[in-house]
Amino acid sequence: MTDTLTRIALARRPKGLPEPEDFSFETSALPEVSVGNVLVAVTHLSLDPYMRGRMDDVKSYAPSVEIGGTMTGQGVGRVIASKAEGFTEGDLVTGMTGWTSHAVLPATELRKLDDSLPPSTALGVLGMPGFTGWVGLKEFGRPKAGQTLVVGAATGPVGSMVGQLAKAAGMRTVAVAGGPEKCKLAVETYGFDAAIDHRAYADAGALRAALAEAAPDGVDIYWENVGGKLLEAVIPLMNVGGRIPVCGMIAWYTGLDGDGSDRLPALWRSVLVKRLSVNGMIVFDHWGRFPEFVSEVTPMVANKHIAYLEDVAKGLENAPKAFISMLQGGNTGKQIVAL
Amino acid sequence: MTDTLTRIALARRPKGLPEPEDFSFETSALPEVSVGNVLVAVTHLSLDPYMRGRMDDVKSYAPSVEIGGTMTGQGVGRVIASKAEGFTEGDLVTGMTGWTSHAVLPATELRKLDDSLPPSTALGVLGMPGFTGWVGLKEFGRPKAGQTLVVGAATGPVGSMVGQLAKAAGMRTVAVAGGPEKCKLAVETYGFDAAIDHRAYADAGALRAALAEAAPDGVDIYWENVGGKLLEAVIPLMNVGGRIPVCGMIAWYTGLDGDGSDRLPALWRSVLVKRLSVNGMIVFDHWGRFPEFVSEVTPMVANKHIAYLEDVAKGLENAPKAFISMLQGGNTGKQIVAL
Repeated sequence: MTDTLTRIALARRPKGLPEPEDFSFETSALPEVSVGNVLVAVTHLSLDPYMRGRMDDVKSYAPSVEIGGTMTGQGVGRVIASKAEGFTEGDLVTGMTGWTSHAVLPATELRKLDDSLPPSTALGVLGMPGFTGWVGLKEFGRPKAGQTLVVGAATGPVGSMVGQLAKAAGMRTVAVAGGPEKCKLAVETYGFDAAIDHRAYADAGALRAALAEAAPDGVDIYWENVGGKLLEAVIPLMNVGGRIPVCGMIAWYTGLDGDGSDRLPALWRSVLVKRLSVNGMIVFDHWGRFPEFVSEVTPMVANKHIAYLEDVAKGLENAPKAFISMLQGGNTGKQIVAL
Repeated sequence: MTDTLTRIALARRPKGLPEPEDFSFETSALPEVSVGNVLVAVTHLSLDPYMRGRMDDVKSYAPSVEIGGTMTGQGVGRVIASKAEGFTEGDLVTGMTGWTSHAVLPATELRKLDDSLPPSTALGVLGMPGFTGWVGLKEFGRPKAGQTLVVGAATGPVGSMVGQLAKAAGMRTVAVAGGPEKCKLAVETYGFDAAIDHRAYADAGALRAALAEAAPDGVDIYWENVGGKLLEAVIPLMNVGGRIPVCGMIAWYTGLDGDGSDRLPALWRSVLVKRLSVNGMIVFDHWGRFPEFVSEVTPMVANKHIAYLEDVAKGLENAPKAFISMLQGGNTGKQIVAL
């Protein structure tokens, strides 16, 4: 057992896509554990698109990471020292460890995991991304049998959960993903009825024509992970009474797209004419339903009714590279770092 | 009693703001009344912003007016001939007469009015505009005491209903209107807590500063009648959990505003970060609640707990001019044509 903690700090605020130089590696002695707290040796770290937003110094739903502060994020690990009731050495736990080899956390902010499924599932299919898809679809998507769902970033951990749950609810499901391999995966692994490679279409108009073919009855739920060209393509295909849960906009985290003209009036007109229901969602508002999610979805994962994939980068030192690659769509499944 | 029907037809499709030459006056003999129908002599005609949309040849929630077809609209009148059970000469009725001196309508599409309130109230405060405000606020605005509402076109028949109902629900109410007289009216007649003259501010930024002062705790409901500069101004002021019923966008019916840059990414980001609930609404989806509205709001109007104002143009020949003026904000209250 090492006695050194290594953490990844925000060295400077990125413009657009982060660069390796935006991160710094800092080492220190293992911290002391005070009463009520637990020392965790992190074994798996989650990388998620929302972290890009935390690197900016703008008001958002959660505070920015300070310069020099540890990059935030969820981790899984083993308890190596505990001064909290109910936690003992060797326990498998998850919590907001940050990008670090070790973390001291209050016991109240940790959740114990059992060992029946791989520990990393607590970061993906049974963690925040899976829960995001589950709760957003229930609360704002309101799936109906016979209707059509379109989801971007469809092979990601949120999109693949949304697609599989919508399919199970009897919907036609259309995946949008980057590249032929992800499209194959969407259909073969996640059971989408159709998959569209957005990279094959130069502009929103061409993408829209492909979507119209894959969704001949129009679109009832557009699950928004992406923004940009896909949003512009799908809006005119929305049916009256359509729902748009707005969960992310990865296309706009690192820059803009489009020809620069104002697309707001056309969107707004569609919202009115089609009586769309557009709801921004942040998973942290919904934690109250997390236990319901875990008990409903854990057996579906164990029975393989819900498939999932993980991309695992090895070693904390590779976290920045894996993160940058993920923001460019370089991952296939849920991006994990194994320490 | 005349034996000639005069109607106003769509002569050509306007570009932007309609012109008098876009309308034509057509006369014909009074039509025969067949079984199940009623002949109505129109006494009051409603002019509403949505009619501008019907003049365009684009897919919308309702069919376009054909070239040569009668301009659509709601009217009030007296029955002058009836071949339908339950309707007799002299009855006061309302229905979708169109812009015309006389109309034959199926009895099933007419509603009888009593004579206790002025007949024109059935077109405004107790008609479609009043109902729009009432049902949209209940379904999508969800007023809460202590929160803040902003409404544009605040002295119009929808905006003034929304403001008065929100105030009655304990909200702080902020009116946005065009010109100092309408602002005075908003505060003195409709009881808004503050009123802002959008014409006094050159751009969205300046308008936003004035709004921020009038809504120091942020905005919880933005009732969207307007679009354009006001939408751009208000979005950054929205509180987490804010609601935006999208009811109209008069600023965009006849052209665009802004500096031409793409305002969609900023809107979409706010929807996500503030978890906004944006719902397009078309009053025709909600007719099932119309009787509830009439029974709830009629006494409030009779008791003068709900104020209303009407602008009355005299004579069918003045309908186009009054309509064009209304689209430019030239009216103060609900625009009526008295025949």
